[in-house]
Amino acid sequence: MVERSAFSTGQQVRLACRAQGFTSQTSGLAEGFAQANLVVLPAAVAADFQEFCRRNPKPCPLLDVTEPGNPLPARLAADADLRTDLPRYRVWKNGELAGEVTDLVDLWRDDFVSFLIGCSFTFEAALLRAGLAVRHLDLGVNVAMYRTNRPCASAGPFRGPLVVSMRPFKPTDAIRAVQITSRYPAVHGAPVHIGLPGDLGIADLARPDYGDVVPVAADELPVFWACGVTPQAVLASARLPLAITHSPGCMFVSDVHDESLATF
Amino acid sequence: MVERSAFSTGQQVRLACRAQGFTSQTSGLAEGFAQANLVVLPAAVAADFQEFCRRNPKPCPLLDVTEPGNPLPARLAADADLRTDLPRYRVWKNGELAGEVTDLVDLWRDDFVSFLIGCSFTFEAALLRAGLAVRHLDLGVNVAMYRTNRPCASAGPFRGPLVVSMRPFKPTDAIRAVQITSRYPAVHGAPVHIGLPGDLGIADLARPDYGDVVPVAADELPVFWACGVTPQAVLASARLPLAITHSPGCMFVSDVHDESLATF
Repeated sequence: MVERSAFSTGQQVRLACRAQGFTSQTSGLAEGFAQANLVVLPAAVAADFQEFCRRNPKPCPLLDVTEPGNPLPARLAADADLRTDLPRYRVWKNGELAGEVTDLVDLWRDDFVSFLIGCSFTFEAALLRAGLAVRHLDLGVNVAMYRTNRPCASAGPFRGPLVVSMRPFKPTDAIRAVQITSRYPAVHGAPVHIGLPGDLGIADLARPDYGDVVPVAADELPVFWACGVTPQAVLASARLPLAITHSPGCMFVSDVHDESLATF
Repeated sequence: MVERSAFSTGQQVRLACRAQGFTSQTSGLAEGFAQANLVVLPAAVAADFQEFCRRNPKPCPLLDVTEPGNPLPARLAADADLRTDLPRYRVWKNGELAGEVTDLVDLWRDDFVSFLIGCSFTFEAALLRAGLAVRHLDLGVNVAMYRTNRPCASAGPFRGPLVVSMRPFKPTDAIRAVQITSRYPAVHGAPVHIGLPGDLGIADLARPDYGDVVPVAADELPVFWACGVTPQAVLASARLPLAITHSPGCMFVSDVHDESLATF
């Protein structure tokens, strides 16, 4: 077991993954450095997926896209290798989970394109710095996520509902949370909805589609952000012969400072 | 009756007031120029009132404060005179309305200090430019205002509850409204509350304390902003021997562009 506090930079996390000593979730590691969702696709469907992301920037904010076959995301981290530098990966075949691996060395192909998608950890760190409490972090559980009745804009085989994450806040903190997260469009940005879950087709907040139940108090509003699980749900429904993603919570940790992603 | 469309600048409104040909509300006049609430007080209580405003910047954002006896708010309008350039004024004695006048020429004293306080017209114009509908403007009524259970920070004789204005929006528009109005702290800025009126001590939205009833639909949230009526309510409760304000809706129209008040 690697001591988690040893990881103060993205490079340290990546090198520990590369040595296969670290295969756990990355939440809370390398504080101040942006983490990213990973989607790896064959080039034949990459253009459609890129256009899907462009049409749905709130759930799928692209931090970077690599050239076919190139596993080096140099614009996000100088010495990183996407084949080895994440703790764990999921391999999907025909939309079904086919396995989990700790590197992609044997699976890598010359036509693989990697998409790095902004992650809510960056805006959650900003909420914490502003003194707001993030309930699921306090409870040590995963954020509650819901499939909504809002369809994403489709592109090629990629279509499906917007998935949202929910964080409860008192009204004044909800307003602060809108202000704070608006500064970070590269990591989902401002909430997409607030206060009226039924309007999103969410019948019962206590039954999330992904993640854990996160209680909402009577004096709080549920605040909903577009979620990086959206592209994974869309990938599954596209039933591609082959797709690879990070394993849940096992993100790519970059060298990009969270604050460098703020627009103002 | 002066043709309202003739007023395209603050100066035109002020000169019409000065000639006493215009004594009506200023909403919608001189589009793009900031309007201001006016409070005139004897110098003996001015320092306390200024500190009250500083402690409560959301309801009382100070655009300018004049020197004792000087009725010329040169920083907001080069050739303006606060004694003549508003449509109508209210004179308060011991907290009671003692009369309404169209100029302050005979009432003016060498110890009068004028406070010019930002007005929500500036942020409402920004909401309209972003394509949001502002219900009370669509209905041609006054905004709904409520005394809350939140006390302002007191200073000297000045104390009282925060008064809020309410505008209903669908959740996605409510989020946009937070973003847009956050840019304008000099005109009340971001909302102070959203969605849970009971939390503010508002038992029934259909019974506003000031202004008109503004309906909230089932798919909308009530969004609450700190309101420029707060200082008027506070002045009344302070029971000062003498105070002067603008008459409701009869604002000082400045030469300051609305957009020059945006912080970013």
